[in-house]
Amino acid sequence: MPRSHSALPRLFVDTDLAAGAALTLGKEQSLYLAAVLRKGVGDSVVLFNGRDGAWLCRLTGDSKKSVVLEVDEQIAPQTRPSDLWYGFSPLKTERLDYVIQKAVEMGAGIIQPVTTQFTQVHRLKPEKLAANAMEAAEQCEVLSVPEIAPEIGLDALLSQWPQMHGDRVLVFADEGEASSSPLGALQNLVGRRIGLLIGPEGGFSDSERERLRRLPFVLPISLGPRILRADTAAVAAMAIIQATIGDWR
Amino acid sequence: MPRSHSALPRLFVDTDLAAGAALTLGKEQSLYLAAVLRKGVGDSVVLFNGRDGAWLCRLTGDSKKSVVLEVDEQIAPQTRPSDLWYGFSPLKTERLDYVIQKAVEMGAGIIQPVTTQFTQVHRLKPEKLAANAMEAAEQCEVLSVPEIAPEIGLDALLSQWPQMHGDRVLVFADEGEASSSPLGALQNLVGRRIGLLIGPEGGFSDSERERLRRLPFVLPISLGPRILRADTAAVAAMAIIQATIGDWR
Repeated sequence: MPRSHSALPRLFVDTDLAAGAALTLGKEQSLYLAAVLRKGVGDSVVLFNGRDGAWLCRLTGDSKKSVVLEVDEQIAPQTRPSDLWYGFSPLKTERLDYVIQKAVEMGAGIIQPVTTQFTQVHRLKPEKLAANAMEAAEQCEVLSVPEIAPEIGLDALLSQWPQMHGDRVLVFADEGEASSSPLGALQNLVGRRIGLLIGPEGGFSDSERERLRRLPFVLPISLGPRILRADTAAVAAMAIIQATIGDWR
Repeated sequence: MPRSHSALPRLFVDTDLAAGAALTLGKEQSLYLAAVLRKGVGDSVVLFNGRDGAWLCRLTGDSKKSVVLEVDEQIAPQTRPSDLWYGFSPLKTERLDYVIQKAVEMGAGIIQPVTTQFTQVHRLKPEKLAANAMEAAEQCEVLSVPEIAPEIGLDALLSQWPQMHGDRVLVFADEGEASSSPLGALQNLVGRRIGLLIGPEGGFSDSERERLRRLPFVLPISLGPRILRADTAAVAAMAIIQATIGDWR
């Protein structure tokens, strides 16, 4: 993606965006632009809403409580929402922010917290995850903010998979799989809808692994000979999926 | 890699490791084992030195100042040091630790700080980077700790490349490259020695990009349609390199 306008602040808004429209930002975003970034009348920002692409906008009012903007011109068309489903085991706060950020950068479309036997963190706040995803989209110039699905247990996820996800293949990073390149197996999935499941720091339990490996919609892959942390495994697996059968092609 | 013994503490030591050998840990590692982890006589730990593989060892003395161990049996043979060269633009401390950790997980063998026009951090402490790499190797069960090369400017690096690196190909993540899968270009490099260069957060400057693209030993690749942070780009690129022509095969 060309980096023009990438020095400008980018903000996600709920309102429709079209040339000539005027809009007033909420308190938090107004404070951020006017007080933190010290933007004033005449300065430009980029707004997106996940539907109308990215728009160059100009400040016409710079009150710290309610910044007013005029929508100027579209600088990027809306991208299609990604269909990549990404299931991860919740981690502690700091690394959790990181995992959401990375998932957005790598083009996940649906982010699904999945609790497993070795998951140590439960009851995530969905609104916090959604805010993380929005912030990551702002930073990474992604125009579709991924959907955050409500937390689910691994057993329920697997039992409901065929009804919930149709013929979507569930790729899982299996630490017990002998080290071998996952490229060939993934290339066979071209055109298929993909889910990627990454376990918690301690990996899946033996019984979870056995259940996963027996299911017809599951594809175990290896991510090489080294043990990867969960967040590294997620980026590595998504890179390989995007490069073989995803949107890097 | 099987996770047997992975619940045990792993420590990097300088001394030779062989069955029956006795050794005394230094102050910091002794304190860590005896005081932080509360290990005592009879408890097991895993030691490695980057030369002799991984060894199961037993505490025979648990003084907080000098833990004494007996080397028991080899549990993993030494792996070959990786030949993957990874050049990165220094980042601020917190993210820097992260970048080193990820490079070790992804199997970099030589880690080279490279300063560019948009690099914001200079004069890294090499001993701090080496300690980071060692710690990452301990955590990720990597038996070869990567070498940390002294900081170098991009211009000098490129001028010296053919003399210093022979026929090693320098792959660089080029944000100006049209989005396309890097798999084909990388597959053509099978058997070649590889370097991977990732730019700073603001990317390479136009003149740096032009110079890189003109050099015969440089291969620009795309990492897809989204803008990736430098640390994400590093993991993504190393995943693709390892899966196509590296040690994931």
